[in-house]
Amino acid sequence: MAETIFTKILSGEIPCHKLYEDDLVLAFLDIMPLSEGHALVIPKEPAETLDKLGAESAAAIGRVLPALGRAVLKATGAVHFNVLQNNGRPAHQYVDHVHFHIIPKFGEDGPGLGITWDAGKLEGDRGAELARKITENIDFGD
Amino acid sequence: MAETIFTKILSGEIPCHKLYEDDLVLAFLDIMPLSEGHALVIPKEPAETLDKLGAESAAAIGRVLPALGRAVLKATGAVHFNVLQNNGRPAHQYVDHVHFHIIPKFGEDGPGLGITWDAGKLEGDRGAELARKITENIDFGD
Repeated sequence: MAETIFTKILSGEIPCHKLYEDDLVLAFLDIMPLSEGHALVIPKEPAETLDKLGAESAAAIGRVLPALGRAVLKATGAVHFNVLQNNGRPAHQYVDHVHFHIIPKFGEDGPGLGITWDAGKLEGDRGAELARKITENIDFGD
Repeated sequence: MAETIFTKILSGEIPCHKLYEDDLVLAFLDIMPLSEGHALVIPKEPAETLDKLGAESAAAIGRVLPALGRAVLKATGAVHFNVLQNNGRPAHQYVDHVHFHIIPKFGEDGPGLGITWDAGKLEGDRGAELARKITENIDFGD
């Protein structure tokens, strides 16, 4: 995996406003925040995208999200937030090291993540076939 | 916690296109998908928002995300995807039971999650103070 700004933060080469660290995870403030308290949670394991991340690192990140979410809400006074994790440029990923955003949302039209939701409808037959295809491809690789 | 469509899916009262299940987690297809393969991962633990979810359930969800993400990509042919988890109506949450969306993104302007990114800049002094406030509020509660 190529070096990124996050691998440089992990190595200490670039400083960060650290929020949390354990053996598998580092959390710090996003310096280009969508809103006050915008935080990032990243694995120490080098993985460009979530589909390439090991189950142990992914579980470690999951464990941190509620505690860090609570802390961000308390510190900022926000009561709502989004967690977002992007994989690939078309999906809005701009640093090629897995990162989960914790983004406080300050009211319907206030600062935070903007979401556009253009939903369709899953028809029964198509759903059953798609579920079968996904299910048979699940492999934890551990 | 009030009953929701997801508690009814968990109890079997409402059917779903199941993708994965273990002691702590259920995953199934979203019937109002943003794109082909749009999946939901929910905890069996009843929690309205992520900040109220226990660390063990959150870790169990984290563990499932890479494996399910890979399976969704393989089954749909997508190569990019977003993971999104919303807390509160202003943050786009419409079912009051924690759920992580896995949403394939089919090209820059293709089906998937639409994101609006209006970032600011975190100034040094403000960042240090904010990081201190968040850090002192981190509590895993376990």
